[in-house]
Amino acid sequence: MIKAGIIGGAGYTAGELLRLLINHPEVEITFVNSSSNAGNPIVDVHEGLIGETDLVFTDELPLDEIDVLFFCTAHGDTKKFMDSHELPKHLKVVDLSMDYRLEAPEHEFVYGLPELDKEAISKAKYIANPGCFATCIQLALLPLAKNQLIHENVIVNAITGSTGAGVKPGATSHFSWRNNNISIYKPFSHQHVPEIKQSLRKLQGSYNSEIDFIPYRGDFARGIFATVVLHCKANADSLYLMYKEYYADAPFVHVSEKNIDLKQVVNTNKCLVHLEKHDDKLLIISCIDNLLKGASGQAVQNMNLLFGLDEQTALKLKPSAF
Amino acid sequence: MIKAGIIGGAGYTAGELLRLLINHPEVEITFVNSSSNAGNPIVDVHEGLIGETDLVFTDELPLDEIDVLFFCTAHGDTKKFMDSHELPKHLKVVDLSMDYRLEAPEHEFVYGLPELDKEAISKAKYIANPGCFATCIQLALLPLAKNQLIHENVIVNAITGSTGAGVKPGATSHFSWRNNNISIYKPFSHQHVPEIKQSLRKLQGSYNSEIDFIPYRGDFARGIFATVVLHCKANADSLYLMYKEYYADAPFVHVSEKNIDLKQVVNTNKCLVHLEKHDDKLLIISCIDNLLKGASGQAVQNMNLLFGLDEQTALKLKPSAF
Amino acid sequence: MIKAGIIGGAGYTAGELLRLLINHPEVEITFVNSSSNAGNPIVDVHEGLIGETDLVFTDELPLDEIDVLFFCTAHGDTKKFMDSHELPKHLKVVDLSMDYRLEAPEHEFVYGLPELDKEAISKAKYIANPGCFATCIQLALLPLAKNQLIHENVIVNAITGSTGAGVKPGATSHFSWRNNNISIYKPFSHQHVPEIKQSLRKLQGSYNSEIDFIPYRGDFARGIFATVVLHCKANADSLYLMYKEYYADAPFVHVSEKNIDLKQVVNTNKCLVHLEKHDDKLLIISCIDNLLKGASGQAVQNMNLLFGLDEQTALKLKPSAF
Amino acid sequence: MIKAGIIGGAGYTAGELLRLLINHPEVEITFVNSSSNAGNPIVDVHEGLIGETDLVFTDELPLDEIDVLFFCTAHGDTKKFMDSHELPKHLKVVDLSMDYRLEAPEHEFVYGLPELDKEAISKAKYIANPGCFATCIQLALLPLAKNQLIHENVIVNAITGSTGAGVKPGATSHFSWRNNNISIYKPFSHQHVPEIKQSLRKLQGSYNSEIDFIPYRGDFARGIFATVVLHCKANADSLYLMYKEYYADAPFVHVSEKNIDLKQVVNTNKCLVHLEKHDDKLLIISCIDNLLKGASGQAVQNMNLLFGLDEQTALKLKPSAF
Repeated sequence: MIKAGIIGGAGYTAGELLRLLINHPEVEITFVNSSSNAGNPIVDVHEGLIGETDLVFTDELPLDEIDVLFFCTAHGDTKKFMDSHELPKHLKVVDLSMDYRLEAPEHEFVYGLPELDKEAISKAKYIANPGCFATCIQLALLPLAKNQLIHENVIVNAITGSTGAGVKPGATSHFSWRNNNISIYKPFSHQHVPEIKQSLRKLQGSYNSEIDFIPYRGDFARGIFATVVLHCKANADSLYLMYKEYYADAPFVHVSEKNIDLKQVVNTNKCLVHLEKHDDKLLIISCIDNLLKGASGQAVQNMNLLFGLDEQTALKLKPSAF
Repeated sequence: MIKAGIIGGAGYTAGELLRLLINHPEVEITFVNSSSNAGNPIVDVHEGLIGETDLVFTDELPLDEIDVLFFCTAHGDTKKFMDSHELPKHLKVVDLSMDYRLEAPEHEFVYGLPELDKEAISKAKYIANPGCFATCIQLALLPLAKNQLIHENVIVNAITGSTGAGVKPGATSHFSWRNNNISIYKPFSHQHVPEIKQSLRKLQGSYNSEIDFIPYRGDFARGIFATVVLHCKANADSLYLMYKEYYADAPFVHVSEKNIDLKQVVNTNKCLVHLEKHDDKLLIISCIDNLLKGASGQAVQNMNLLFGLDEQTALKLKPSAF
Repeated sequence: MIKAGIIGGAGYTAGELLRLLINHPEVEITFVNSSSNAGNPIVDVHEGLIGETDLVFTDELPLDEIDVLFFCTAHGDTKKFMDSHELPKHLKVVDLSMDYRLEAPEHEFVYGLPELDKEAISKAKYIANPGCFATCIQLALLPLAKNQLIHENVIVNAITGSTGAGVKPGATSHFSWRNNNISIYKPFSHQHVPEIKQSLRKLQGSYNSEIDFIPYRGDFARGIFATVVLHCKANADSLYLMYKEYYADAPFVHVSEKNIDLKQVVNTNKCLVHLEKHDDKLLIISCIDNLLKGASGQAVQNMNLLFGLDEQTALKLKPSAF
Repeated sequence: MIKAGIIGGAGYTAGELLRLLINHPEVEITFVNSSSNAGNPIVDVHEGLIGETDLVFTDELPLDEIDVLFFCTAHGDTKKFMDSHELPKHLKVVDLSMDYRLEAPEHEFVYGLPELDKEAISKAKYIANPGCFATCIQLALLPLAKNQLIHENVIVNAITGSTGAGVKPGATSHFSWRNNNISIYKPFSHQHVPEIKQSLRKLQGSYNSEIDFIPYRGDFARGIFATVVLHCKANADSLYLMYKEYYADAPFVHVSEKNIDLKQVVNTNKCLVHLEKHDDKLLIISCIDNLLKGASGQAVQNMNLLFGLDEQTALKLKPSAF
């Protein structure tokens, strides 16, 4: 059994991770660290786990007792932790924060998008789990980059569920405000763009254009739905071949020739991708569940790869569908 | 022109009051007091007023300049204010808090439910505006009390929109939690029950039973939908006559012989009431918009009565319907 | 491997059944019959299954090739089918319609609520799967009946998601109408009441009172949330003991001493039950996912019992939580 | 009093028109024609009007008795009607269908976007009321065209509420499907694009580029929220001046220097426009209520202009805000 510890256990991604790991046949949860909730049963915070676990939050960190450590910490806090602690040699790490997503000589984290480089992840020790928007947008673009086809700015409009903004209440997550509402934030300046570019450059050395990304706040809780537009000379048939070939070995990415909608992926670790050519414009639609393929599901997928398990272990989830 | 001041101007009921008064042909808003927002334009806080007003929040209280003062304050704060200020003699007051809803020798507030005693309101100086649940439930029951027909516990189940819980963010108003969720709170102990009983006793001296009220949190922003059940010997036809007679002079209450649904009243000052007899059980359905007939709409209705205006002035609102 | 066939494969309960059976380690889906969709891939109708199955709807009925037949048919259609077909001797049946829920000398269906009589189900050949409201309300009441404690009318208010009304579009399932709306239907006359009474009588021979049930249409897709009220002399502690004892062997029913909310069970096969005493009134809250414990999840649970499998096989589902 | 008739009275736009005209001080509704509903009270179909009107649908067409005729007909049906009927000479027409939005020698309809040419509308007899998406997108672009600033393709992503798809139930308006879902339709080929181009060309003779428009289905009932992106050399300050000058005489269009969200316009006839420069990219956000400024509100605005009334008559609506 793989023994797992979680830091930052009270947030949404930790809850989702727990909901996955509890049914993982090869994992035992050793501790869930949350200073603010130490001593409280996990089910008091993570609804939907009632009857499934007796775990209690702890403020201890028995790192020697675990094989893998998940950081579900706020951005910046993983780095603080890594800088101030010496981790046991054998310990593997999956970091859900954005602290180590950009490669740098100072750290040895591998970017954990299995559809980009599964091999590297399998051999890694520390994984930087990708951002939710970043995952959804990359999965729309990777096959193009692989085929050296991105030569201009890419136009991205993507709408996210409220869970993407975390558990902390605020004005834009207030039900009375958000219900039936639509708005945008951080246009052309979202923090996930750099990691997208980093991946595209890996596949297409010549890649040198912008991701013109407008993020929308949606009035739903789960999911990201993205439209991606760029000019492209290839025709629809050859593009479909390209995408299907690229994702041949990716069990969670499905290329659909029919139009898709967000709820087809909610509560799954899937990404659906749909392509349409309109004259010389290529429209790519992709969607994921932001808490699963966009966060904790991908974290488990990475953990499976780190430990040589089948990538899909504990991730064949019943879609909620409605 | 009636000059109006508002205290507690940053909350939901104040926003709704402003949205109504801005279009009131006989009212001029003199000041909107909010210590936390002093100096900020009102449209910064109350969305949907953009382009309609240049008013700015103030921390001043020029009580001498106004004819009517609306308290949109938290429960307890109106009383604190009244105890610590001497109001100008001529000044009329409409208090939306619950501080003075129960009659007492110590105060001269009149309970502001026009369908209970329009006459008293018209002659009053200070009005205690009823609670939202209290309004919805009373309007379901008043004709029965008037006809001395309540002889046993009344079973009430009523579901409210999130705006009933106010602007302050919290766990149960977080979009991620509340969206698509249902829950209850304060079963059999909601603070609006005493004012309901007080009204019933006024119409039916013998009234001496319980209101068994379970409040539900709904996953919508506006409205209250209540079902009220009690045993009653009268038949449906005579009950409809009773209700229609009782509300003959109530321009906002409509007795519907067809089944009703919540959105028929949203964004209006109406209350719809529907009756069904099932054997000896009488089922009464009533619904209102909690921010209008349940709060600020009723406050304007009361103000209209206080100043001898047509009750419906500024309250013939376009229903949102969807 | 258990070979399964499904009749009425295009509806919501069939979709949910497929989403469960696809991940069931002991089941192989042999055919999905839908005359209206014959020849179409299942993923064209049941979204969220993309990438998980290549199954195609058929209008054939190879009953000899299967071990278990699920009826996801409209009410009335199972009976028509049973009256006009001779089923292979060995074939087991789980009927999700309401045709055989009431016991009668003319048929040999066993009522499939495992928490009522798991033993009988295990030995049965034909199962009548309970109704969704009926499941939620019975699980709130069975321990009381077992302890001979129901002596008066039981007041039930329960709100259901839109999937309860099926896939066929109509006025009350139109998004523009239902979004943010609340209404009731069939008060005191819902078709699930007789099966509830039948179960209560089995446990409490003296049971002879009414279920005063008002069903509400909720503005969400999945779930049923019920409040159940009756007078009861037992105190809270002894009632909790009673309920926990009754459900000691029921892996999907959890008795919670904390208040509960609907989303704690959505996308699970669980039922949560919470109790509160208020003076002599007992309030029981129970909630389920109407498509899982209220339909297809319970159908799989019954199938597991029919074939001697662990009751929870393929039903340890990740809650959607949000 | 202006006497008004309505054809196609059972749809959403007719309902909204009725909700407006009932409170219009200068209008009397003479008839509401609906062959399918002839004889039924209007409140049976248009919820939210209960208590406000005793009107009954008719299948008669007393065109001689009215001053203005509103077509709330399906696309194609207005033209059929016009081709087969001779209208009384004095009769003015506002057509909410798309039949006459494109100017042509064969007809004398004037395109009814007051912010484009209020003068022409005031003098017109027949008005072609603009499309909902078309209104929202044009109001984002008109000041640019007026200043000859559109020199390349314009990227538009806009999301609409379900009421935009009408009252007829269907797969994509089913609550169970649409709730919490996002999808797109008709990318780069929406039928409103030609009328947008026609208007831009009127203001900017040199305009010769594309509107790359992706329409999204939102999981809310009312409203359209659009983002519009193009390259533009002008800086933000000068653009704000330009927009404010262009809309100086437009009482319903408000240019906001703060970010905006959809619910700020819901249940109003307003359009909000917000601008941001990001390097050389200009982002314009605009939003309207699709049933008001996008349909029936604009129809009343046009009627006001046709009859020389204040443009805002009966259109100073209380925003629903929540």
